[in-house]
Amino acid sequence: MHEFELIKDYFQKLSKKSPGALNLNDDVFFDKKNKLVVSVDTYTEGNHFINFKKPELVIKKIIRSSISDLICKGVKPKYYFISGSGNKKSFSKSNLSKISKALNEEQNKYKIFLCGGDTVFSNNLSFTITSIGFANNIIYRNKAKINDDIYVSGNLGDSYLGLLVLKNKIKLNHKLKKYFTNQYFMPNIQLKLTKQIKKFANTSIDISDGLLADLDKMINNQKLSYKIFLKEIPISNNLKKVVDLKKKSKIDYVSNGDDYQVLFTASKNKARIIKKIASKFRVKLTKIGSIQSHLKKSIIIDDKNVQINLKNKGYLHQF
Amino acid sequence: MHEFELIKDYFQKLSKKSPGALNLNDDVFFDKKNKLVVSVDTYTEGNHFINFKKPELVIKKIIRSSISDLICKGVKPKYYFISGSGNKKSFSKSNLSKISKALNEEQNKYKIFLCGGDTVFSNNLSFTITSIGFANNIIYRNKAKINDDIYVSGNLGDSYLGLLVLKNKIKLNHKLKKYFTNQYFMPNIQLKLTKQIKKFANTSIDISDGLLADLDKMINNQKLSYKIFLKEIPISNNLKKVVDLKKKSKIDYVSNGDDYQVLFTASKNKARIIKKIASKFRVKLTKIGSIQSHLKKSIIIDDKNVQINLKNKGYLHQF
Repeated sequence: MHEFELIKDYFQKLSKKSPGALNLNDDVFFDKKNKLVVSVDTYTEGNHFINFKKPELVIKKIIRSSISDLICKGVKPKYYFISGSGNKKSFSKSNLSKISKALNEEQNKYKIFLCGGDTVFSNNLSFTITSIGFANNIIYRNKAKINDDIYVSGNLGDSYLGLLVLKNKIKLNHKLKKYFTNQYFMPNIQLKLTKQIKKFANTSIDISDGLLADLDKMINNQKLSYKIFLKEIPISNNLKKVVDLKKKSKIDYVSNGDDYQVLFTASKNKARIIKKIASKFRVKLTKIGSIQSHLKKSIIIDDKNVQINLKNKGYLHQF
Repeated sequence: MHEFELIKDYFQKLSKKSPGALNLNDDVFFDKKNKLVVSVDTYTEGNHFINFKKPELVIKKIIRSSISDLICKGVKPKYYFISGSGNKKSFSKSNLSKISKALNEEQNKYKIFLCGGDTVFSNNLSFTITSIGFANNIIYRNKAKINDDIYVSGNLGDSYLGLLVLKNKIKLNHKLKKYFTNQYFMPNIQLKLTKQIKKFANTSIDISDGLLADLDKMINNQKLSYKIFLKEIPISNNLKKVVDLKKKSKIDYVSNGDDYQVLFTASKNKARIIKKIASKFRVKLTKIGSIQSHLKKSIIIDDKNVQINLKNKGYLHQF
């Protein structure tokens, strides 16, 4: 059963009386009256992170993943709570020092504050992060309009390459290995975009499951589809090198998730202001396609103007 | 290492810039400016609950445990988020139905709303509950005054008897077994007290670890001690029966935790209003002792006016 079906079947009805829960069909909870925005996510070893050999990097990854949910909605994260379940080995003094140091670095980088949490014993290591921000308004899912341009921030795919490196599924030189694993553990989330994105985005989501999976999620309640141009999808120079080297198609690398970049749509007449803001705040914002009527199928066009046949649309949590 | 030392050594410094975190030395996070109160707790199978044979009861227990943190501070819980880690068996359709039904019953009983959460795969079952309320002020820990009376709501010990029954560590008739296990899974948390407690309490905590452990926690930063009279500690008629039947001392049953009753101190001149409110709102509030200077030792006096020698002061999470 997909996580989404599970939520829909058993829990959506429980949130009916709480409009801020957005029918449990958004990245965050938003209580407009109290201006409160909340995101809760759980990360488990072997699932959301491979192992805990580098506690400081795992911690950075999950903190960024959590606050990314707020950032993509145009909300500045302010507080976070961390609840860890683990055993003596995971929470050894040495590991606790590394966790504490990593949290401190993230606090300084993103101006967030630890406000509480819990530590309990378990042989399966997992963390639940609750992130909180305040806002008068947020950018919702499912507010795209026909003919909207589709944009993405930063570069995609680097994080997935990092995962392949960590799993020993790709051979690269030391420098590239380091670059990609750093991108995997410390994605360049776009805090600078938080204040700006409300000026132009109609709808938004952060890319955690994969470009196409998250595109689907972003408009899942709308009678809309999308058209994406593969050649427009932004990738780093290092990823370009790998694509050339491995003689693989770019599509194999850019929709596998863990990017924590912002995906959004905007009316065509916002193109100028988007360019201006991108330049002023030094945030890479790339138009990769457009929203179309549901009478057309969602498609991806490759460099030769040919439609790509897609098998894997990203990672969905499966029970 | 005790959970408290762990928090103190590695995480307290991270919360320094966020006064609302109350130095991570309270049951909740309180952001006075935004009137926000948050509690985050993780519950794991084999630790906070024995097993998942009765999902509906486990769910009720952990929801009540979570909102109890807010209630004891005088804060009405409003929203909750539930994040579950488990496997296919734990999250079977049958179990999900039971979880959903139990949550719905708790929502109606306590007027709280599901606002989000997460479901992830893990072979160790655990839940993290984030509870949120709003308040202009809360009752803090460590605000007791010398000569304050110490009060407790409801009855203590029933829940612990329930645990002994579930662990087959005590033999009782069917009726008593059912009574105590119900008290274990569905403690009578005191929602009615939420609005009233601010009228008289100087400091408060909910009893989760055990009467004495939580008394210690409630005043752990103060130069104070306590004097408790065993005979004053309120217990149910059913527990009275068991104490008589098993020829055990009451002290063996009343400080073992999971009571989720409110422990608080109040100035002596509040005695009348406390009695009045207890009667008006039909909440049992019992004076069990008083706060004294740290120059005296914390003590418990038994029925023969003899000081009890205490070995086990309740359950502290140990790594």
